[in-house]
Amino acid sequence: MIHVTVWNENIQDTGIIKDEFLRPGLSNEEIEAYRNQLKANSQVIQNIYPGGIHRAIASSFDSADDIIVTTVTMDMPEYGLSDNLLANTDVLIWWAHKAHNQLPDRIAEKICNCVLKGMGFIALHSAHLSKPFRFLLGTSCTLKWRMNDFCRIWNTCPSHPIAKNIPEMFELPKEEMFGEFFDIPKPDDVVFTSWFRGGEIFRGGCTWTRGYGKIFYFHPGHETNNSLLNPYVKQIIINSVYWAVSEKRREQIMCQHITHPPDSM
Amino acid sequence: MIHVTVWNENIQDTGIIKDEFLRPGLSNEEIEAYRNQLKANSQVIQNIYPGGIHRAIASSFDSADDIIVTTVTMDMPEYGLSDNLLANTDVLIWWAHKAHNQLPDRIAEKICNCVLKGMGFIALHSAHLSKPFRFLLGTSCTLKWRMNDFCRIWNTCPSHPIAKNIPEMFELPKEEMFGEFFDIPKPDDVVFTSWFRGGEIFRGGCTWTRGYGKIFYFHPGHETNNSLLNPYVKQIIINSVYWAVSEKRREQIMCQHITHPPDSM
Amino acid sequence: MIHVTVWNENIQDTGIIKDEFLRPGLSNEEIEAYRNQLKANSQVIQNIYPGGIHRAIASSFDSADDIIVTTVTMDMPEYGLSDNLLANTDVLIWWAHKAHNQLPDRIAEKICNCVLKGMGFIALHSAHLSKPFRFLLGTSCTLKWRMNDFCRIWNTCPSHPIAKNIPEMFELPKEEMFGEFFDIPKPDDVVFTSWFRGGEIFRGGCTWTRGYGKIFYFHPGHETNNSLLNPYVKQIIINSVYWAVSEKRREQIMCQHITHPPDSM
Amino acid sequence: MIHVTVWNENIQDTGIIKDEFLRPGLSNEEIEAYRNQLKANSQVIQNIYPGGIHRAIASSFDSADDIIVTTVTMDMPEYGLSDNLLANTDVLIWWAHKAHNQLPDRIAEKICNCVLKGMGFIALHSAHLSKPFRFLLGTSCTLKWRMNDFCRIWNTCPSHPIAKNIPEMFELPKEEMFGEFFDIPKPDDVVFTSWFRGGEIFRGGCTWTRGYGKIFYFHPGHETNNSLLNPYVKQIIINSVYWAVSEKRREQIMCQHITHPPDSM
Repeated sequence: MIHVTVWNENIQDTGIIKDEFLRPGLSNEEIEAYRNQLKANSQVIQNIYPGGIHRAIASSFDSADDIIVTTVTMDMPEYGLSDNLLANTDVLIWWAHKAHNQLPDRIAEKICNCVLKGMGFIALHSAHLSKPFRFLLGTSCTLKWRMNDFCRIWNTCPSHPIAKNIPEMFELPKEEMFGEFFDIPKPDDVVFTSWFRGGEIFRGGCTWTRGYGKIFYFHPGHETNNSLLNPYVKQIIINSVYWAVSEKRREQIMCQHITHPPDSM
Repeated sequence: MIHVTVWNENIQDTGIIKDEFLRPGLSNEEIEAYRNQLKANSQVIQNIYPGGIHRAIASSFDSADDIIVTTVTMDMPEYGLSDNLLANTDVLIWWAHKAHNQLPDRIAEKICNCVLKGMGFIALHSAHLSKPFRFLLGTSCTLKWRMNDFCRIWNTCPSHPIAKNIPEMFELPKEEMFGEFFDIPKPDDVVFTSWFRGGEIFRGGCTWTRGYGKIFYFHPGHETNNSLLNPYVKQIIINSVYWAVSEKRREQIMCQHITHPPDSM
Repeated sequence: MIHVTVWNENIQDTGIIKDEFLRPGLSNEEIEAYRNQLKANSQVIQNIYPGGIHRAIASSFDSADDIIVTTVTMDMPEYGLSDNLLANTDVLIWWAHKAHNQLPDRIAEKICNCVLKGMGFIALHSAHLSKPFRFLLGTSCTLKWRMNDFCRIWNTCPSHPIAKNIPEMFELPKEEMFGEFFDIPKPDDVVFTSWFRGGEIFRGGCTWTRGYGKIFYFHPGHETNNSLLNPYVKQIIINSVYWAVSEKRREQIMCQHITHPPDSM
Repeated sequence: MIHVTVWNENIQDTGIIKDEFLRPGLSNEEIEAYRNQLKANSQVIQNIYPGGIHRAIASSFDSADDIIVTTVTMDMPEYGLSDNLLANTDVLIWWAHKAHNQLPDRIAEKICNCVLKGMGFIALHSAHLSKPFRFLLGTSCTLKWRMNDFCRIWNTCPSHPIAKNIPEMFELPKEEMFGEFFDIPKPDDVVFTSWFRGGEIFRGGCTWTRGYGKIFYFHPGHETNNSLLNPYVKQIIINSVYWAVSEKRREQIMCQHITHPPDSM
């Protein structure tokens, strides 16, 4: 069995943000306005993803009998990620947008450590700016953006396991435009490249390896669009989980002192 | 001084094709029709590139004092590529379209051998199907195509030497659409990715290394459009020549028998 | 079921070489001497690999219930590789040494074409100079060599599927030294790097992708050593077959004319 | 002119460690013992590198007229790295060993930010565990180690600019063994691979790109050996500086909101 954990920031879905997840330095009026805007926006999101974005992602695996999904949210104890849960997670899927920097570094580092030991990590949409993703890649992961464009996703690595059962191209009628220059390290594979009607292109489906762990970034999933219900997007998320399960795990990460050279034994 | 050789098939430019460069198996009537069509088309090309495509490419280097350009064409002795010329070429630029398969394998292999020894090779536009390019890459280099689309070229590797002095994006109002899946080996760098208004994307500026030699493929340059006069295209061709000059050359390519292990000496 | 075809040149194993597989230009005396030397050497090989190298490789899969192995040799009709067999081969394993250039180009091209369509290709030991391997990679694949060194094989990409169940290092007491510079295109992954007591290193386990097909080169397997019986070598060959089975196949390789742009439909 | 800054931890060279650079949690006795050991060891180092390791590295550039070198040490204000100095540094060279974790995260992040904007970064020897290097790469950068082995450095990418004027192999009679598995992301190029007499191999000269900046890691340089005086090591450091100077710089790193799509203008 493959154990998948879906982590969601869960702020825009509920329209509720805890004080500790607010960006520091806002005035009371700014906080009030922000909370009102979140509340209004949450109606739109709940119409699309009634149980929250994490449950929408989790439902991708409904027909996968060998995958067990756990959903957690940022407002849970230990930000949803107890050591025990992480130790039992084969692949962690991350959705976040509004409070990337309110996740403590120590949580992000704990996640990175698990990836280096062999846990898979799948970052969706705005998770390009999340701490675990940026810490693992080492770059700013900045890009260009614009709301609500038409998107055509081309397969630029058709024999990749993540492209299994995906046609050479499929369309998302409304999705946030993400455009180049996308400040990422050279991917192992650029599985998908996106075309936007407005005129941009984007390396929207990329893989990397860090330590024993595999990482996949996939562009779709803006909270007020409905891309996470698209059957190809769901299939790609499933494929990426099967791909991201590591062949090997390691327990310890350390520099080993080899006092006896192998050629003397 | 850097010695650049520009090789042009020179069939569509002149509207004249020698018998030996005709695809085998055509009837006399088909040959007649083909020659007439070539002739008509050549008027369009000569209006754009009066001295032929090779001279248009060569003129890119007019202001580069450290680059000496030689232009050759397929109808010259030894297909324009004497051993002596190749031995004195730092970077070979290739434009061809109509008679890829009429270049003998032995000429293509001679070129590949020079690349493995350190000669740079730059393939423009339809040269994706040329023998030297395909032999070096090892794949079919097939793609999708359509005449006359609007093209926007995005820089997906902005710090690459080939992107020097090129803005993050520039436009070609009319160019042949080349689209994915482009059957190439994973490039060392995808320096440019093209957006087409019709809906496709293309990895249109890619680099590879083969032996001691560097290879660049660049998408623009259809014979009836005028992209080779575009200042950014010219700049990219110049940049690619400076980049493709190898740091090292080797004289011999062979398996060396090491009878005395270095650790016994 | 996975269909594996093991191809063996089968000259050194039998000590018999057909006239057509002799290097051209040898005098009758040279041919006589060569045949005698082959004959003598074949006794050594048959002691190690009684049924020939192809059967030794095939026996690696004895316990793999989902793999069906066919062995063929160069002296069979159509060089052992009928169109029908190739069409039903998921992964082709290649062992050859003495007569690389006596395999016609058209056979090598037929193999390459199958790889581009999705067939896996595994080249063992001296197959680095075989035509299918060189044609797919596009380089000379030359290297340094010396008989009978002690070899230690280090895992430089431990989470790769080909390294599954392989320790971080294992030893081959006697194997041909292959050393750098190995003239190959940059591998997708360098899964194993070899250390030789004599003082050399070698990227001895490398992967590439060409079209829809996956390629693995693995260094061990000299005919007078017994590395192909080593349990780790056998496990790596098994792993590489599972890895090389393509997720997707394609039927046709061609440039497709897209007369109607997708964004106009 | 190229501005190079050489940064040295400068603890082992002087034999003096400031309280703030001590690992936390040591008892007074442990601190005393550690200081005494440092003091004793510093005699050995000063015999090899009289002015400290930073000056030894800086002297590599004595004959490079177009390179201006500044040396700084960890015990200087702002850890030697004022914003002004960083803004005027084209390539930063890093040597450190004993106090990696006593460099504050904010300094490491400032350096990473400069790299993403186009500053080159060269990490020598034990700098594989330094914060700027690990933050840029995103992995643990752990490895195996042993003091004082014989090392042979093979060129596995001979046409790379960093290998200019370096023979295919050179030897370091005494250097610290660093061995695989080296937990680094897949390098852009593995320029050098090291052989150790004790039986290990190591990807000892690797390049990466992060943002607009180039990174080179090079294995030699243990404080009690004298590799930094080796003419090939010096040449490689010079080569790596020329290579690491970025073609382009950027001022700002941010996500840009593109309110007007380029195809509507």
